[in-house]
Amino acid sequence: MDMKKLAIGIDIGGINTAFGLVDENGDLYAESVISTKKYPYVDDYPAYVKELCNSMRALADSVSFEYELAGIGIGAPNANYHQGTIEMPANLWKFREGETDPDENRRIFRLAEDIARCFGVKTLVTNDANAATIGEMIYGNAKGMKDFVMITLGTGLGSGFVANGEMIYGHDGFAGEFGHIIVERNGRECGCGRRGCLETYVSATGIKRTAFELMAKMTAPSKLRGIAFDDFDASMISAAAAQGDPIALEAYRFTGEMLGRALADVVTVTSPEAIFLFGGLSKAGKLIFEPTQWYMEENMLFVFKNKVKLLPSGIQGKNAAILGASALIWQDGAKN
Amino acid sequence: MDMKKLAIGIDIGGINTAFGLVDENGDLYAESVISTKKYPYVDDYPAYVKELCNSMRALADSVSFEYELAGIGIGAPNANYHQGTIEMPANLWKFREGETDPDENRRIFRLAEDIARCFGVKTLVTNDANAATIGEMIYGNAKGMKDFVMITLGTGLGSGFVANGEMIYGHDGFAGEFGHIIVERNGRECGCGRRGCLETYVSATGIKRTAFELMAKMTAPSKLRGIAFDDFDASMISAAAAQGDPIALEAYRFTGEMLGRALADVVTVTSPEAIFLFGGLSKAGKLIFEPTQWYMEENMLFVFKNKVKLLPSGIQGKNAAILGASALIWQDGAKN
Repeated sequence: MDMKKLAIGIDIGGINTAFGLVDENGDLYAESVISTKKYPYVDDYPAYVKELCNSMRALADSVSFEYELAGIGIGAPNANYHQGTIEMPANLWKFREGETDPDENRRIFRLAEDIARCFGVKTLVTNDANAATIGEMIYGNAKGMKDFVMITLGTGLGSGFVANGEMIYGHDGFAGEFGHIIVERNGRECGCGRRGCLETYVSATGIKRTAFELMAKMTAPSKLRGIAFDDFDASMISAAAAQGDPIALEAYRFTGEMLGRALADVVTVTSPEAIFLFGGLSKAGKLIFEPTQWYMEENMLFVFKNKVKLLPSGIQGKNAAILGASALIWQDGAKN
Repeated sequence: MDMKKLAIGIDIGGINTAFGLVDENGDLYAESVISTKKYPYVDDYPAYVKELCNSMRALADSVSFEYELAGIGIGAPNANYHQGTIEMPANLWKFREGETDPDENRRIFRLAEDIARCFGVKTLVTNDANAATIGEMIYGNAKGMKDFVMITLGTGLGSGFVANGEMIYGHDGFAGEFGHIIVERNGRECGCGRRGCLETYVSATGIKRTAFELMAKMTAPSKLRGIAFDDFDASMISAAAAQGDPIALEAYRFTGEMLGRALADVVTVTSPEAIFLFGGLSKAGKLIFEPTQWYMEENMLFVFKNKVKLLPSGIQGKNAAILGASALIWQDGAKN
């Protein structure tokens, strides 16, 4: 019998970097974590890579059976799959205040190459949302599907899409950024510098903004009226909705309306078999699924009506990001 | 030396069906045409297929050298590549008035199979806009590009996109319908039954509607004010614009604004190397290219700014549709 193969999946967030050893079935054998925020500045990056490599080495050695390390997959913000880089990430390795040479090109981090150097195995990076998409395809509910869309509802809205059985990266490696489709001309200000992007409405931040808009618009009493903007987080809306709070319920309905309308356009472009919702907001279940489904069908081009499934992700759970990153390796292997 | 290979390209329109013999370089060796509108009803379809096959046979026999017929590619409205069918086309083979069994399933025409039966060669169908896309890739300005978008500006707005070097059809074979992205909530009525689709603004019909809206909105004198809606066609706008007519110029600017904004979203989703404009309206040159380019960049997500080329098609001309359809065969050959 062939030796068991494992891949390392790495999930780089602004606070922590989590990583684990995963097999082709998505079983996790060992996991660990280092702090990302301990390394806030551009010139901390080499030390970050060093700690990450050392910790991964320790983790790899901790497994009690013999295995082949098939590769390392990394999910990170602003990752460019084609180049193996992380490019100008908003919350990682920034310039110090008063930096004398704040050339943004210095913030293109050649992460795949730097990590590969530690281990001598194939190393691939992609953004978190694409990693989740590949995770869904390899381990989750999209197994066997050749055309699907994955929507990751976190602080923002990430997404990825697969067509002809392949992840679509596009020419620059940044395809599938549905969160930055403009859904409202002159709408809400977005972190990208523009206005009205889908993620300003549909995300943890988006639904919070909606709740505040509704407190101004509606007169209904609501527990949410007692909480200041800075103390507020999206989970308070689902808690309130569970108790029938009218502002919270309307916030979900409106979020579903914005998402459903956008998904009708996404279907027009990608013609998927299914769309998966993943991440924080998607855990609200029918609060978000029902209005999304309704508005999606209501706005759907006739040839697609009642054909596209809207489904929960099959890789929800605390290790989804590690799984997704590790799946990069199995998908790449399947292709060759 | 191998025997020369030719493919038949067929372009099915509501009025005529044009077809021709094309080699791998896009050179056309013979062409012919039959009437489509002679066969308006569902029960005329078999006779249409028969005449088309007979005429193709005559054309195929008219070539004076020996060649191998590599296949037949068909571009048609509402074509489903996966199924080889034309499904409920708006302007082809309709029910007679008072039809006793108007079951729309009877309007799923198995065209690829029916045509293949005449010749015994591989026969593929796709919609006109996808055929143009493949034509651009095989013979035109997209040669060697792996990720690009083709926008066909005709009566409506057709489109197709290629990612990872492959045409994206999606699960139902209808992907890439950028003309039916909704760009204006509660906007103009669209033939698809919804409102605000891109093609209601950006197409020959769309710019005509814009010109009439502008005649109401603006007070500037214009030659266009002397023409009734029913007598009006889009070419009158470019003629007027060439003479500096303010309504006509504004109509082009507005059309470019709507297209440019939509293309910024298209880029966000597909991350193409280039976008090609093809068909009627695109021949207006800088009248349409300049505002489109400007508004596309103005609305572009930062990672894509000044990276995506907006280019004229390289297969413009009277045989583009036949070329596009024939390219289906060479593309399919390259894949296998």
